[in-house]
Amino acid sequence: MMGKIAANQSVSETAKSIGALVTPALLLDRGRLGHNSQGLAERAKKLEVVLRPHMKTAKSIDVARYLFPGEPGPITVSTIAEAEYFAGHGFRDMTYAVGMSPASARRAMGLCRRTGADVKLLLDSVEQADALADIREATGMTPSVFIELDCDDHRGGLKPDDPKLLDVASRVVAAGAKLVGVLAHAGESYGLNTPDALVKAAENERSATVRAAEILRAHGHACPIVSVGSTPTAHFAENLEGVTELRAGVYMFFDLVQHGVGVCELDDIAISVLATVIGSKPEKGWVLVDAGWMALSRDRGTANQQIDQGYGVVCDEKGRVLEDVIVAQASQEHGILAIRAGSGKSMPELPLGSRVRILPIHACAMAAQHDFYSVVNGDSPMIEARWERMRGW
Amino acid sequence: MMGKIAANQSVSETAKSIGALVTPALLLDRGRLGHNSQGLAERAKKLEVVLRPHMKTAKSIDVARYLFPGEPGPITVSTIAEAEYFAGHGFRDMTYAVGMSPASARRAMGLCRRTGADVKLLLDSVEQADALADIREATGMTPSVFIELDCDDHRGGLKPDDPKLLDVASRVVAAGAKLVGVLAHAGESYGLNTPDALVKAAENERSATVRAAEILRAHGHACPIVSVGSTPTAHFAENLEGVTELRAGVYMFFDLVQHGVGVCELDDIAISVLATVIGSKPEKGWVLVDAGWMALSRDRGTANQQIDQGYGVVCDEKGRVLEDVIVAQASQEHGILAIRAGSGKSMPELPLGSRVRILPIHACAMAAQHDFYSVVNGDSPMIEARWERMRGW
Repeated sequence: MMGKIAANQSVSETAKSIGALVTPALLLDRGRLGHNSQGLAERAKKLEVVLRPHMKTAKSIDVARYLFPGEPGPITVSTIAEAEYFAGHGFRDMTYAVGMSPASARRAMGLCRRTGADVKLLLDSVEQADALADIREATGMTPSVFIELDCDDHRGGLKPDDPKLLDVASRVVAAGAKLVGVLAHAGESYGLNTPDALVKAAENERSATVRAAEILRAHGHACPIVSVGSTPTAHFAENLEGVTELRAGVYMFFDLVQHGVGVCELDDIAISVLATVIGSKPEKGWVLVDAGWMALSRDRGTANQQIDQGYGVVCDEKGRVLEDVIVAQASQEHGILAIRAGSGKSMPELPLGSRVRILPIHACAMAAQHDFYSVVNGDSPMIEARWERMRGW
Repeated sequence: MMGKIAANQSVSETAKSIGALVTPALLLDRGRLGHNSQGLAERAKKLEVVLRPHMKTAKSIDVARYLFPGEPGPITVSTIAEAEYFAGHGFRDMTYAVGMSPASARRAMGLCRRTGADVKLLLDSVEQADALADIREATGMTPSVFIELDCDDHRGGLKPDDPKLLDVASRVVAAGAKLVGVLAHAGESYGLNTPDALVKAAENERSATVRAAEILRAHGHACPIVSVGSTPTAHFAENLEGVTELRAGVYMFFDLVQHGVGVCELDDIAISVLATVIGSKPEKGWVLVDAGWMALSRDRGTANQQIDQGYGVVCDEKGRVLEDVIVAQASQEHGILAIRAGSGKSMPELPLGSRVRILPIHACAMAAQHDFYSVVNGDSPMIEARWERMRGW
């Protein structure tokens, strides 16, 4: 038995099988990634929109290459560091889908100048628009700009009928920047859980965005791109008339929040954390593992859903769900596995040293706690590849 | 103005002043670190115990050297990767304060063999004790072992009066390992908020641990080390008779959870995230910044305290608290600043591009989202140093 146990961390980097991995370790199921990414790609095709995957979840050139086996395609990024990383790997058409500051806009334009990348910016105020003139002058680049829309009171953005929409558009033009379109994110859709409500949220996102584009066009702005997207609405939109592109990120991996919303099955979830049993408290029905919130993240996104999954749903080493076993509590490097409250089940035997896989509450947050994916496929114990992740700003 | 703005990430790595940092960025106030670390060092001296700082919060050799300006001293670690990292920088006397698995114990002993480090292990079961025989044989090293105690039903460990305590001790000896002591962590003290309750929790932690040591000694085990510790109990223990060492980690930096428990002042909190204003929604009283949960962590540890601080307390760029301004909501790269509910205050002016510092809900979790500290001191804008962090397992 001992010969199979990792003697130091470097073993994880060259591990050929799950048994040789140091735990906790982030696993990525290639088959599920393929199924999920193909699923939305086909939906986008049917709905006649461009799919612009959001790389904030995967943050990995290997995942991006998996999505675009040929030429690098259009992507969305959440940080300028992501834009720099993907530009360094040949991606050119990027949207930085966070409201720009003067500093981030300038850094993005510097990247465009150095690499020939086209990093489109997002704004919703005249102050941001006005800042573009200086940036254009300082970098010699003409910023491409989206106006951010607010379709559901989630975060930033302008309502389509806000008179500021036209003010901002005029100031973008006055600053010598290029208004390329409007962009909305139906962030409140994460709080829904019925097909009807999701269809409605998708239609609301579509109609608000198209309406803003129409207003801009009626006032002489071309507004070629009409961009919508959130993983829930992307999967429930019934038609996207007037929309030109769809953005989504977490769909590649899916997670328990998306499962609670009703967007995926448990079997679609493509990432998990492999953990090792380090103890038990039979009198409390607890099994302790070496994956705490440092490996799982502190995300408790299912706490307000119909089924609270704690810090994650527990599967056996091959990825088969252990019914009603969840990570009930987590400290930094400890997870406490327990049966979900109210379940009639009892805790399965999980002796010292045995291994489990823990499905993510929120894939973006779990993956961010790790530096690489160990790529697996189905219930095979073999590790097919090691895919790096980037981080930072 | 533009000349001061970072043009790419590498600027952050060599930034001489806060103004040149790419945001979000993790700041560490050296003066506060000094004050906090000295404070507990003096308490430990007065209480006549060895202080064994837990490096799980800082995960930085520069912080460790700051704590031990002379010879590397005794430390606690939360992962074997931490033990490897600190051993690589000359630390020798380490306690791995997470229950061992056969794999982690073997990896720790491999490290001891290669470097001469002494990594003490933790266990609470005969299964773990029995696994030590194989590890001893395979590595040629004699594991040093603590028995983990449970003083407050927090997590793992044995109650002092559990008959298994003596069984485990015997099996440790039978496996040819060395029983070096008993170790407790009063994890439930994080849920308290009055001096009386904290004094009681500290006394309970002390008495449970000393009692276990006495039982072991009465049965012929030497049990030289009697180790207790949590940041709250370490600061409220009135006497530590019978205890030989004290462990704590978050005290170096402190955070809003510890403030809510009553262990520190807001002014003691040594780390913060520098963020840039990217927008506002005046009609909602919101200001948006470029620090979301990716920079702040998803930790909501004050949600159940008397004052819910959201995702963090907001200060101006110099670190002066903006009264009743908190990060009320966070998505991956967006933070929404708002006035605390029920406050009579109104939102201060925070124009586009201005900067704020956000104090951590939980220092261990916030710091883990970053790769380095930009070291500052008081309200000076200068960056004195860049201290790296390690991560992973």
